[in-house]
Amino acid sequence: MPERTFDGRKRVVIEKITPAVDNGRFPIKRIVGEKVEIEADVFVDGHDILRCGIQFRHQNEKDWREVAMTTLYNDRWNGAFIVTEIGIYLYTVVAWVDDFESWRRDLAKRTNIEDIALALQTGAMLIRAGEERAVAARHNNDAQQLRLWSETLLDDKSIEERRSFALSDELAQLVAAYPDRTLASRHEKEFTVVVDDKQALFSSWYELFPRSVNTPPLRHGTLKECIPRLAEIAAMGFDIVYLPPIHPIGHTNRKGRNNSLITEPGDPGSPWAIGDKAGGHKSVHPELGSLDDFRELVENANNLGLRVALDIAFQCSPDHPYVREHSQWFHWRPDGTVQYAENPPKKYQDIYPLNFETDDWKALWEELKNVFEFWIERGVRVFRVDNPHTKPFPFWEWLIREIKHQYPDVIFLSEAFTRPKVMYRLAKLGFTQSYTYFTWRNTKWEITHYLNELTRGEVREYLRPNFWPNTPDILHAYLQFGGKPAFVSRLVLAATLSSNYGIYGPAFELMEAQPREPGSEEYLDSEKYEIRLWDTDRPDSLSQLITRINQVRRENPALQQYRNLQFFPVDNDQIICYAKWSKDYTDIIITFVNLDPYHTQSGWVELPLDELAIDPHHPYQMHDLLNDERYLWNGANNYIELNPQISQAHIFKLLRHVRTEHDFEYYL
Amino acid sequence: MPERTFDGRKRVVIEKITPAVDNGRFPIKRIVGEKVEIEADVFVDGHDILRCGIQFRHQNEKDWREVAMTTLYNDRWNGAFIVTEIGIYLYTVVAWVDDFESWRRDLAKRTNIEDIALALQTGAMLIRAGEERAVAARHNNDAQQLRLWSETLLDDKSIEERRSFALSDELAQLVAAYPDRTLASRHEKEFTVVVDDKQALFSSWYELFPRSVNTPPLRHGTLKECIPRLAEIAAMGFDIVYLPPIHPIGHTNRKGRNNSLITEPGDPGSPWAIGDKAGGHKSVHPELGSLDDFRELVENANNLGLRVALDIAFQCSPDHPYVREHSQWFHWRPDGTVQYAENPPKKYQDIYPLNFETDDWKALWEELKNVFEFWIERGVRVFRVDNPHTKPFPFWEWLIREIKHQYPDVIFLSEAFTRPKVMYRLAKLGFTQSYTYFTWRNTKWEITHYLNELTRGEVREYLRPNFWPNTPDILHAYLQFGGKPAFVSRLVLAATLSSNYGIYGPAFELMEAQPREPGSEEYLDSEKYEIRLWDTDRPDSLSQLITRINQVRRENPALQQYRNLQFFPVDNDQIICYAKWSKDYTDIIITFVNLDPYHTQSGWVELPLDELAIDPHHPYQMHDLLNDERYLWNGANNYIELNPQISQAHIFKLLRHVRTEHDFEYYL
Repeated sequence: MPERTFDGRKRVVIEKITPAVDNGRFPIKRIVGEKVEIEADVFVDGHDILRCGIQFRHQNEKDWREVAMTTLYNDRWNGAFIVTEIGIYLYTVVAWVDDFESWRRDLAKRTNIEDIALALQTGAMLIRAGEERAVAARHNNDAQQLRLWSETLLDDKSIEERRSFALSDELAQLVAAYPDRTLASRHEKEFTVVVDDKQALFSSWYELFPRSVNTPPLRHGTLKECIPRLAEIAAMGFDIVYLPPIHPIGHTNRKGRNNSLITEPGDPGSPWAIGDKAGGHKSVHPELGSLDDFRELVENANNLGLRVALDIAFQCSPDHPYVREHSQWFHWRPDGTVQYAENPPKKYQDIYPLNFETDDWKALWEELKNVFEFWIERGVRVFRVDNPHTKPFPFWEWLIREIKHQYPDVIFLSEAFTRPKVMYRLAKLGFTQSYTYFTWRNTKWEITHYLNELTRGEVREYLRPNFWPNTPDILHAYLQFGGKPAFVSRLVLAATLSSNYGIYGPAFELMEAQPREPGSEEYLDSEKYEIRLWDTDRPDSLSQLITRINQVRRENPALQQYRNLQFFPVDNDQIICYAKWSKDYTDIIITFVNLDPYHTQSGWVELPLDELAIDPHHPYQMHDLLNDERYLWNGANNYIELNPQISQAHIFKLLRHVRTEHDFEYYL
Repeated sequence: MPERTFDGRKRVVIEKITPAVDNGRFPIKRIVGEKVEIEADVFVDGHDILRCGIQFRHQNEKDWREVAMTTLYNDRWNGAFIVTEIGIYLYTVVAWVDDFESWRRDLAKRTNIEDIALALQTGAMLIRAGEERAVAARHNNDAQQLRLWSETLLDDKSIEERRSFALSDELAQLVAAYPDRTLASRHEKEFTVVVDDKQALFSSWYELFPRSVNTPPLRHGTLKECIPRLAEIAAMGFDIVYLPPIHPIGHTNRKGRNNSLITEPGDPGSPWAIGDKAGGHKSVHPELGSLDDFRELVENANNLGLRVALDIAFQCSPDHPYVREHSQWFHWRPDGTVQYAENPPKKYQDIYPLNFETDDWKALWEELKNVFEFWIERGVRVFRVDNPHTKPFPFWEWLIREIKHQYPDVIFLSEAFTRPKVMYRLAKLGFTQSYTYFTWRNTKWEITHYLNELTRGEVREYLRPNFWPNTPDILHAYLQFGGKPAFVSRLVLAATLSSNYGIYGPAFELMEAQPREPGSEEYLDSEKYEIRLWDTDRPDSLSQLITRINQVRRENPALQQYRNLQFFPVDNDQIICYAKWSKDYTDIIITFVNLDPYHTQSGWVELPLDELAIDPHHPYQMHDLLNDERYLWNGANNYIELNPQISQAHIFKLLRHVRTEHDFEYYL
């Protein structure tokens, strides 16, 4: 005999609930106000009619809410709920056999008068059972109504009149309000949704080395001097300004310019070689200023609608206080020295990695969490995490859960450029956004293939891509050789393919393109190792284009998501076309990019008129939001031509033909 | 801080283990001697080298066995183990960081002499740690050897000599024998394999109404009279003879010939209307004989290498003893009568379904289990379960688990012709084999699509198809209109696409093709409602062809599985081509079937020479096992022609060209 708690009469099966990451081991991600669309296979033995619902609640709520699901096809059901609060939601699926609806379906098909009479008796019993449940719910009016109706089924009217009433919608609706759920099945697992602030899904990042914000002569910039620059960044339309580490920089084995092993006097060192006697991860580099200056920077940024993102790089220079105070957190070598970072035969002697296999790992974890808390308490809500893939996965899962429990609006960007499954795991376990391979995806095939991977599979549920055309570590050959058209092309791609994107400036808008040496992806005279001066007022700066693109992104909800991406065929591999649109079709954005920075390219696009809800019998307008030009297009196939000297890309807003009741026509 | 039992230093991640059904909720299925090939994503933060293994054991074993896994690509690992005993096996994956191998990889890349000297010290420490583990394992010789070798790394030989030894395989192998697994990860789930007898995967069924085994004059056959027929069935090469229900048949509302509501005197009724005063599911119909006769039948069958399969149909005629003795197991209507089976407006008044929502469900389950036990004790090991989809899923999961716990060799065939997910669920929860939609898949597109669904996706792991060209319930129009070529085509398809197949005879070999009425799939004068006489000696019987096909199946291991199926393109939609081969290429079977029963069809096939390990520079033989003809083929593209008047199909065995060391050539 089965166990005592098991009830073999619970017959309904609920399977394959989607979305779900690794069968519910990890949460899916949404932002406030988003709809969570759930599907499930739900079925039962035999032919009974089922009812099915989603149960959901915010973690802080006690009671489950419920929303009905409807059948699609092949025993698949769907439904949706909207997440309205930041934090964690739970959801699962419930289903039960609906005896009354099954009875009603059969009653409608019965032809024999005696069968119908008998069925009406059964129906009256089912309604009276509903009445009892209404009484238990203290809904006395409904109970009374059900009692009356159960009697109506057995009164002295004709069989046909009574059947007609028994099949009425008003009766069905009232009975449905008091379902018999004693044998309901509930899926054994509760799934989770992490609900973030809108910026988790839609953000525009600008990376800035604060020590390089000056005008000539060359000198070490300060946080205070960054403040005027913030206004320019905000004016370009960015909403996150991200600073590489602002902490004291080590002196031992400090790197010189262009990553030289020899340091010249005055070389500032790499900001990622964190810590000296002035402090470590909770200190500000004295030459940048003080904690008070930092607070002032954050306040000024916030007033401009900018959030400041800090770079959290868990590694130490040999001079970091941790090395002395917590020597057990490092790897020691047989000669009594600390193990520096290395990838033999390469050595990074200015950096000591932490030893996460230390017996003292709990104290280490707590201290690292405290680094985040320290900056959160000083107004930081966005963190770009450096190389998370070289620290244990369980550490990040714990840390992000702990931090978000207390500060649910914090954003963590994972800077892991490593193997795909490692990057995916980091996103699963809690990172809000992730760097991607975008920088190395340059051909139409590469972009299409990669974006479909990110926006179509299970990955879309947990990894929010953040696309960067450049970073201080990556100057791709495409930018080195393509000139301005290459920068435009990559900018448009990043900003329209992904709802989260960023640039490393002013190197980007000033089109810095010299590699350290041929074949290298490193910048020549990289800011990582020296202070640079930038003339952001240069007339060839891309800042105007960037400003326009950020404005287009802000004005068009279709560009503020990534799961809505769809590619359309163009008969030329140098032109890529893709669209994003809002579910209500009020905002349809179709982007064309010439991937060839050297030549004019042309071709024919084929748009799926049905999917775009375009009337095939009328022309429609394509309004280029970059240069305000308008084209009148007809039907599915249209010609496109992009000349690098004129325009490298179109970001079209589609205006469809609408006919009014008076037969006036206009475009919407 | 994390919970006390949690160790944050266990860094290795193990994900996406395959095969697994619904993430391990249900077992996969294998037969004794089969290899279980496991894959998993396994990775760790950073760059450490991992080791990875499958842990597995038979449920009755206490200790886990372990077999190493190797890397494939993109952090995917694979390995395999062989299941040698019937019953349930468990498996999961373990992995750990291999410090010694990581150290060794780095040592090989080091160039600086001081770095190497220091690394040798580290290596000596790692080897001594291995020595300690060897001591703990009481492997004193190995421990001593490791101690010596750790000293060798630090002796007075040159650095290069010592490095060379440190990199030696003999050292690596001995250290690897004593891995440090204190921080090993083990996947949180243990997966299960149900291991069956070979017949679960490879069986040939023959369905027979025992009451119709006589020669004229027409009279009710007996179990005793079946015995001579068994020899003929065995001679045709079948190994399971399946009997529709052999129990007493109800009298109340008994169905007449051709499913008539009016019964004529002498009408025997449907065997599926089970039970009368002589007994129910544990009784033999008096006209068929006694329990002793049944035992004799089973013994005779077994002596011929035939197993007897019984039909378990959990439903009752109104005269079944259960109705009186366990009235609580039925649905009662308000007029005090028992609810018969119905699908309004259709009624099946000769059958009462059981009420699985009865409060007395536990007693009902026990009794139904006892029905199986009753026949198992009388030598039955194979059951064809009638309409399992109209009984609750939890019931079957419990029943099959209970029965197989005691009798692990029992085979359950699920006769569920219903919605796909319901059929799949029944297979998942334990049915050994399943009827399929094969009967209704007749075109090349349908067959290819459906077989790929069965043999490529997760379904292949839990659903063993059993293909039937006909059943007493299904005479497909293809057979009604196609004449002998249609019967041949469907027979060859069933017997070569699926390793389990069956026919309902003698209707099949005598090519019975008359429907009850035009458009019906029911047989005219169906044995379900009357006794039939069959002249199995008729010269046009397909019995010789059937005999040959069953022999080919027995002689060719490639045809004794289904997951090895692969389709090849033919440029004619009326000719289908597919292959199955053994993993060692010693048995390659390529089948061609003309799906058009009316016309000669021809076309070109394209064989993937690489996959079939065919030398493109030499001809190869195609030996038709049906008619013993041989064709010499060359290269990938070859011509095929099938004339319904001559041969409707080829079952080719591919004989490849082999060159000996003396340059003699022959075909293997």
